Amino acid sequence: MKDSEQKSYTLQEIAERFGGEVVGDPDTRVGQVATLENATPGTLTFLANERYLHQLGATQAAAVLVGAPMRDATGLPRIVCADPYAYFARVSGLLNPARAPVAGVHATAVVDRSAVIAPDAEIGPLAVVGSDVKIGAGCVIGAGCAIGDGVRLDSAVRLHANVTIYDGCVIGERVIIHSGAVIGADGFGLAMAEERWVKIPQIGRVIIGADVEIGANTTIDRGAIDDTIIEEGVKLDNQIQVAHNVRIGAHTAIAACAGIAGSAKIGRYCRIGGASGIAGHITIADHVEISAHTIITKSIAKPGTYTGAYPFEANREWRRNAAQLRHLSDLAERLRALEKRFATLERK
Amino acid sequence: MKDSEQKSYTLQEIAERFGGEVVGDPDTRVGQVATLENATPGTLTFLANERYLHQLGATQAAAVLVGAPMRDATGLPRIVCADPYAYFARVSGLLNPARAPVAGVHATAVVDRSAVIAPDAEIGPLAVVGSDVKIGAGCVIGAGCAIGDGVRLDSAVRLHANVTIYDGCVIGERVIIHSGAVIGADGFGLAMAEERWVKIPQIGRVIIGADVEIGANTTIDRGAIDDTIIEEGVKLDNQIQVAHNVRIGAHTAIAACAGIAGSAKIGRYCRIGGASGIAGHITIADHVEISAHTIITKSIAKPGTYTGAYPFEANREWRRNAAQLRHLSDLAERLRALEKRFATLERK
Amino acid sequence: MKDSEQKSYTLQEIAERFGGEVVGDPDTRVGQVATLENATPGTLTFLANERYLHQLGATQAAAVLVGAPMRDATGLPRIVCADPYAYFARVSGLLNPARAPVAGVHATAVVDRSAVIAPDAEIGPLAVVGSDVKIGAGCVIGAGCAIGDGVRLDSAVRLHANVTIYDGCVIGERVIIHSGAVIGADGFGLAMAEERWVKIPQIGRVIIGADVEIGANTTIDRGAIDDTIIEEGVKLDNQIQVAHNVRIGAHTAIAACAGIAGSAKIGRYCRIGGASGIAGHITIADHVEISAHTIITKSIAKPGTYTGAYPFEANREWRRNAAQLRHLSDLAERLRALEKRFATLERK
Repeated sequence: MKDSEQKSYTLQEIAERFGGEVVGDPDTRVGQVATLENATPGTLTFLANERYLHQLGATQAAAVLVGAPMRDATGLPRIVCADPYAYFARVSGLLNPARAPVAGVHATAVVDRSAVIAPDAEIGPLAVVGSDVKIGAGCVIGAGCAIGDGVRLDSAVRLHANVTIYDGCVIGERVIIHSGAVIGADGFGLAMAEERWVKIPQIGRVIIGADVEIGANTTIDRGAIDDTIIEEGVKLDNQIQVAHNVRIGAHTAIAACAGIAGSAKIGRYCRIGGASGIAGHITIADHVEISAHTIITKSIAKPGTYTGAYPFEANREWRRNAAQLRHLSDLAERLRALEKRFATLERK
Repeated sequence: MKDSEQKSYTLQEIAERFGGEVVGDPDTRVGQVATLENATPGTLTFLANERYLHQLGATQAAAVLVGAPMRDATGLPRIVCADPYAYFARVSGLLNPARAPVAGVHATAVVDRSAVIAPDAEIGPLAVVGSDVKIGAGCVIGAGCAIGDGVRLDSAVRLHANVTIYDGCVIGERVIIHSGAVIGADGFGLAMAEERWVKIPQIGRVIIGADVEIGANTTIDRGAIDDTIIEEGVKLDNQIQVAHNVRIGAHTAIAACAGIAGSAKIGRYCRIGGASGIAGHITIADHVEISAHTIITKSIAKPGTYTGAYPFEANREWRRNAAQLRHLSDLAERLRALEKRFATLERK
Repeated sequence: MKDSEQKSYTLQEIAERFGGEVVGDPDTRVGQVATLENATPGTLTFLANERYLHQLGATQAAAVLVGAPMRDATGLPRIVCADPYAYFARVSGLLNPARAPVAGVHATAVVDRSAVIAPDAEIGPLAVVGSDVKIGAGCVIGAGCAIGDGVRLDSAVRLHANVTIYDGCVIGERVIIHSGAVIGADGFGLAMAEERWVKIPQIGRVIIGADVEIGANTTIDRGAIDDTIIEEGVKLDNQIQVAHNVRIGAHTAIAACAGIAGSAKIGRYCRIGGASGIAGHITIADHVEISAHTIITKSIAKPGTYTGAYPFEANREWRRNAAQLRHLSDLAERLRALEKRFATLERK
């Protein structure tokens, strides 16, 4: 949301805060960030990828963030910096700060009397807060959130509207959880006995570290016996499923619609593509990258990029080629046989 | 829900409204639609697929919709029409109209005093409406919906229970949004700096055109800087993820569990299968059909059907064949070598 | 949640209830279950998989559940039983019973006056209950749930917070539904007419049998004309999509993120892996097992395990091998040609 009362800063003020070298008028004032293509006067844009260099000439922006190699690619006022994209992220954060909490409990919220809520926290309309809950300083609880008994929220946690947190979960400071996310539902724990499923009570919790962000409609199940753990700085996109007793290492980022099966251990600084899957009970090393639509069925011990997506084709070609997949083992066998017969023939 | 006070119509009345030729008694009265197999007296059924022709003889329906080639396939009263399935859709819409709004704001809804709500709109129990929201004529807002600040709903929008719309989003007329859907959550925008993720504020909006329908638990993220755009007549099934800055062209239909990555542009009148994926920053032409479980990793410039699903087999055969996938390049190399040696041999 | 006031039992008492042979002190008292690795004094652990045998020596548990072959693998007090995992499930259920309902309707719930609610049922804060709803004995309706008109809940149904049930659905006894699940939203029924989609009213219901459990953010669509049916004892994990008119047979278990397309019929006692897909209008026999990330595009008539996942590799190898998929048909053709030429040559 572009706010008409947006605060503005000069390039000089920005460079004092975040570093970089100002080239051109240091008093150039910017009040919002913009893309090269759709920038309007008074905005700051950035060139993070040479692919967009052709848009630089026509941009309406007041100023540009560029890397050192692009220092002279424009005559506009600019800040030359090491990483324009990261720099842009910081300036945008400065220009678009999160809304400050409005201290207090909304009259329509239902808060158990045993809950301990920091005086400067904001509890939104129609939120429900269970018994023995602790809500830290500066938290914002959105409309319609349901927080179970014994939940602990460290300071500055932000729950958007309609988030659900089950009993006993622990949420670290500055965690952001988007709408529709469900934290701490029962893991899928069943034992078959006498031709019926017996439910295994899920008595672990979900423990979420500091600075984690959790996307809309993502689900993280509580542990079966021990806890499910999301370490600090992890970033989860929308509609991700994290099963019971998973551990996700610090600063790992996972794209939308991925699914992590029970008891999988994922390393630190991994990047996991959209709609990918991690099988249960396996271990992924630090700094592993997994491509979209790939299922990882065995542990990965070495950093690197791993892929297992089927390449698409026009349906007609796909039909012809995919039909051969069912004969692949046979095909390999026939080739081997032919090689042998050929070798015999050559020897004659 | 079959309503016992269902209004009924004669075939004559129906044909006057939607066209087609009545064969048999035009005063035959029908009050509900039904499948051939489970029809009860007083219902209207349809034959849209010859596969179900064998059910026609035994149907209990009062009348049938048939295409011209099936004109004489039954002795029941019937309407002969060009497209029995589309005709059935229209008759069913006539017999099962959406519930009319009950004008007014429920006593338990929490509506900001700056919100402007049409007098004939219905705001359900425990809904939350933020500041500066505009809600148009004939809208129905279900129980527990949370509508952020500055949201605009054009006329006749219908939000089922527990929908969440973030600040600033714009929803076109006659849009239907099902429960659990989240419109306008932050896109997955992150920059890595000094071994930590820096969040990029997501300041774009979601703009949804007229006559769009959005399924249960589907998520559409707001744009990073510019907007995410869903054009008119788009139909999204359940649990679809639409990332920031995607544009979906008019009248495109997407089946459940599909994921569209950031900044992808999808054409008009596309049909996208369930659990398929579209990679970020690519462009799909109009009238493209994508099969279920297919990931599209490159732009598609031509209409047609595209597929990339791995065919299933009994596990034992799959194991044997899939193992060869890891040797496919080697296999192709060996075949080439053998062809060369063979050609050499033949030349001798 | 480990409760400090947990009730405890002796091994003798447990064996009297669930069978098995106590070896060692029968008065050994246990108050909670634990994993071998993280057990604390006073807990009962289990050895269900020889893989964890090495942890048995160091466990802090008070007692262990073991199978007959492991009878002498430990000197700890133990119960020897046929299936330690199923036995553990039952003991854990004894030690961790579901919270009893707190009878009554919360003051902030919005209940239509025509709804009939059993006196011992619990209706949580800010729940909404529509007209003509019937809620059976011992039900627990969580905070923020929205229950549409005419819904019937048999006895002892448990809805966690923020569940949505559309009009007219029928929920069997002891069903558990987790947060964010949506039961009975419209199926994806559309007909194309004059270049626009016409919505087909979805007038069927969702009928859910006894002892079904439904995971967080799972969606089950109502039938188009006839009903969608989930038979007794079915277990659905999180984020599963069940389309209109699907029928899932009794005691089938489906892992997270699976998608079942419209009108598919799935047998009894099937096990369906995570992120798998079942195409529309097909039939799956009883006792079929489907692997994760597999799409089933044709009916399956025989029990067994079926798989269609693409095996992952390091990206570099995947690139080389996957490229050949586009030439697979050609490769098979060339091999066949070579075999022929070779046979001709040998005949000379």
